Amino acid sequence: MGIHIKNVLAVIDGTVKRTDIYIDGNIIAGVGEIPEGFSADTVIDGTDRLASAGLVNTHTHTYMSLYRNYADDLSFSDWLFGNISPLEDRTTPDDAYVGATLACAEMIRTGTTTFVDMHMFRGMTCRAADECGMRAVISRGLCGEGDDEGGQRRLDEAFGEMEEYKNNSRLTFMLAPHAIYTCDTDYLKKVIALAGERKLPINIHLSETRYEVSQAVEKYGVSPVKYLDDLGMFGIKTLAAHCVHISDEDIKILADRGVSVAANPKSNMKLGNGFAPIKKLLDSGVNVCIGTDSAASNNSLNMFSDMNFTALVHKGTSEDAQAVSAVEVHRMATENGAAALGINAGKIEKGMLADIILLDLNTPQFNPRNNLVAAMSYSATGSETDTVIIDGKIVMRDKKLLTIDEEKLYYEANKIMERLRKEG
Amino acid sequence: MGIHIKNVLAVIDGTVKRTDIYIDGNIIAGVGEIPEGFSADTVIDGTDRLASAGLVNTHTHTYMSLYRNYADDLSFSDWLFGNISPLEDRTTPDDAYVGATLACAEMIRTGTTTFVDMHMFRGMTCRAADECGMRAVISRGLCGEGDDEGGQRRLDEAFGEMEEYKNNSRLTFMLAPHAIYTCDTDYLKKVIALAGERKLPINIHLSETRYEVSQAVEKYGVSPVKYLDDLGMFGIKTLAAHCVHISDEDIKILADRGVSVAANPKSNMKLGNGFAPIKKLLDSGVNVCIGTDSAASNNSLNMFSDMNFTALVHKGTSEDAQAVSAVEVHRMATENGAAALGINAGKIEKGMLADIILLDLNTPQFNPRNNLVAAMSYSATGSETDTVIIDGKIVMRDKKLLTIDEEKLYYEANKIMERLRKEG
Repeated sequence: MGIHIKNVLAVIDGTVKRTDIYIDGNIIAGVGEIPEGFSADTVIDGTDRLASAGLVNTHTHTYMSLYRNYADDLSFSDWLFGNISPLEDRTTPDDAYVGATLACAEMIRTGTTTFVDMHMFRGMTCRAADECGMRAVISRGLCGEGDDEGGQRRLDEAFGEMEEYKNNSRLTFMLAPHAIYTCDTDYLKKVIALAGERKLPINIHLSETRYEVSQAVEKYGVSPVKYLDDLGMFGIKTLAAHCVHISDEDIKILADRGVSVAANPKSNMKLGNGFAPIKKLLDSGVNVCIGTDSAASNNSLNMFSDMNFTALVHKGTSEDAQAVSAVEVHRMATENGAAALGINAGKIEKGMLADIILLDLNTPQFNPRNNLVAAMSYSATGSETDTVIIDGKIVMRDKKLLTIDEEKLYYEANKIMERLRKEG
Repeated sequence: MGIHIKNVLAVIDGTVKRTDIYIDGNIIAGVGEIPEGFSADTVIDGTDRLASAGLVNTHTHTYMSLYRNYADDLSFSDWLFGNISPLEDRTTPDDAYVGATLACAEMIRTGTTTFVDMHMFRGMTCRAADECGMRAVISRGLCGEGDDEGGQRRLDEAFGEMEEYKNNSRLTFMLAPHAIYTCDTDYLKKVIALAGERKLPINIHLSETRYEVSQAVEKYGVSPVKYLDDLGMFGIKTLAAHCVHISDEDIKILADRGVSVAANPKSNMKLGNGFAPIKKLLDSGVNVCIGTDSAASNNSLNMFSDMNFTALVHKGTSEDAQAVSAVEVHRMATENGAAALGINAGKIEKGMLADIILLDLNTPQFNPRNNLVAAMSYSATGSETDTVIIDGKIVMRDKKLLTIDEEKLYYEANKIMERLRKEG
């Protein structure tokens, strides 16, 4: 099982080089140099293609792709309590599976090879990612108070799906206490202890809104970041989503403890939450990666779009045209993401997992080919993604999805929403 | 010459309706109702398509598409004086024609049917727009001091190309004093007088940077907006690009005088200039439209991307999730743009110019089809554009450009940049 990508321009260490890439099984077996004994059963002509490590979407809720463009331009509470939560209450596990598959279709089509999902439907994201051929880090969202039944049930579901999918090497798991306002202190302590015992990383929403911060200060006398640090959470490898409203002291804690931050620029704007201090975080040495959040608050799972926002927005907020470069953004969307998840991917390099995307250069937005890393962060739409290889398997070739029946998928997704609306 | 778009979902008055559209010559002859005596020689099946008025890009510099991704993440002065200006000095009119054609290719592919160009190569944008079949408002950039030779030469070029292309109904013209810092008071007065005589609208860069404003205050004791108002410019129909650093008093002047504002959100961020007060402008009744600016400061001419930024960024800056809705953004990108240019387009309505785009709904980002106007502002990449009709002629069908040889275009654009770099 060898794939030879021939004569391709590849993003390697932030620059673009013409080379050949050799994939053996699920591993990049050579770059530029043919591995001993290598034989290709698939040869891909890379002449007019740009190869990049696949993008890593470090924060999303895939089932929510069903709710795309359902409730927009509303206040946070009207959006959540008036519109999204009632839909969620009516959504079945089978619906969630279709939503997750729709999310995979969009992510593959736009160059994402790995995603982190926080969900509430046992096994459904696992099933979708498994069938679509994606790499995923799955985390069942956990809410609870002390030893309450609901909190325990969610933990049981989390461990249940881990057991069920333990033999799928593309799926790994985190424990995901949803946020400090949906988990009480005792429940958080319980989750942290379990994460320690089971050697599982933690995934949490953190300092997303001003309200969350003011509530924490009122209740605990400290910021959400300091509160979790005091609970010992950051002794566990942690991925914190959002981190919009954080102080310099918070940033120091995140940097010192090696917490990775999943920035979600589009979602934070859409919900009126503001801008995470990405430049400060990067300057402080925090591992910053990028997430789309869900299609209910973005409204797409297209990492190229969030890369574009990441590259531009902080130049606007800081009025500094040199803030957050194209190369930094590419790194955030690939190797930083992989580092946050502890997976051996995110780079085109011998020995890495073979998660590679090929972009079609015969498009206006990639010409002239002055700087193709900049083109990825500034000009690309994501639709240039032509071929996607995940774990050494081709899941999209010449823009045709090989693992998903799109016609059926769109039909089903629309049927589900018709039903969910009617039931409302 | 009739085109019948059959059974299509169409954005009409901010909502989506299933209907039939009938095009006779260059006019929309009927919507829903077949015009008397209509016969179609082309029938387009609209079943899985969304029809919208074509997008209107109200500020760009098309020749600069050559410089896409050439100089990024640099301070404004290093970007302009260290990189872009030296390239411009070496760019020939034939180069500019290729750059303008590249711009047209990208705009058509992403649903733009009309653009406003400020250029410096006599006749080259006219030629490109004419050949590509686009509608365009052409303005030769004017700089000058009093009656100096350069200023007069630029005016002669402007009037020269107007004369040359006066019989092309898709091309109209504006006079374009570049900015208050490149035209002195006497030259501005001369241009304003000529615009009045020739009944030509005015196109100008206005209050783009903090520096421009502080210089105006120092030199003239008033803001750039007030200065131009005092000169009587706004007695002429004016399209002002940028308007980032404007006061409430400035906004009142713009509203009172009926000045249209071309917002360029991505360019303003990229160059570290900040955010125009779009919400305030809209609330004050100013006609706000959207421009991409050039590919040297965006780095694409994809209006869908600027629409997405417009919908999201002001929710972020104001921390108000209800600021600038999807419907408002669609209006800014279509009918407000057309109104700014005084062209009878921007709506799917009987009697309007037939500038219509069809988007492919069989894409993950358009499903489920919960709200397709929101999908245009929030989820679309622009690549869904499938068919483009301008002035009643099909210029793209099933994603194939009918007026442009793309292979040749990319080859030439790259050859030119190789040469321009070598000469540097």
